[in-house]
Amino acid sequence: MKDILKSAVTSVEGGLASVVMGFDGVPVEQYVHDGAGVDIETLGIEYSNALTEVRRTADSLSSGSVQEVAVVTENGLVLLRPVNQEYFVALVLTAEGNLGKGRFLLKRAARALALEM
Amino acid sequence: MKDILKSAVTSVEGGLASVVMGFDGVPVEQYVHDGAGVDIETLGIEYSNALTEVRRTADSLSSGSVQEVAVVTENGLVLLRPVNQEYFVALVLTAEGNLGKGRFLLKRAARALALEM
Repeated sequence: MKDILKSAVTSVEGGLASVVMGFDGVPVEQYVHDGAGVDIETLGIEYSNALTEVRRTADSLSSGSVQEVAVVTENGLVLLRPVNQEYFVALVLTAEGNLGKGRFLLKRAARALALEM
Repeated sequence: MKDILKSAVTSVEGGLASVVMGFDGVPVEQYVHDGAGVDIETLGIEYSNALTEVRRTADSLSSGSVQEVAVVTENGLVLLRPVNQEYFVALVLTAEGNLGKGRFLLKRAARALALEM
């Protein structure tokens, strides 16, 4: 699983870190790029709540399942994608990172992780 | 303001509806494409909670202000962008809609709305 996360992080411009985590905030595996200085575990825990809120919202609107959430902040990009009912994967990029490529790589990583889990 | 919303909706492939709303869930203005069948007010109210949760998350991580949130579900795409401290704008696209163009148009719309408000 670490290889899948590492591949996603290192294949995209601005890739910093990635984590697989339960929606309950318990981390399973993570990869942080050398010198990225990202506390990916804390970030994952915090965003697990936000992702849960977005899923609840989509449920209440009968929008079908949430496939992806992208958050753009001043300091960086965070991409979130459910792997299955219990786990999600997050990918963190610099603010200048390539969002489109990150989305593509995270989709691929989520598929590979689903097979592993 | 309606013209700004209409321009964003009609300029992107798969554009369905748009709304300007307070973070408290009170709608200010909206535009729904003919026959889109989107209850944009309810959608905005529900997503205002999700967006507030994402902002809280970014705050707690010192990620800087949230500039944009994109949610991809089975049934469609929802783009959210703060206009200022009190208001945000949402743009809804079909699942096949052009996310990249939608992001560009919503950024432009948010800027124009900030000047109006």
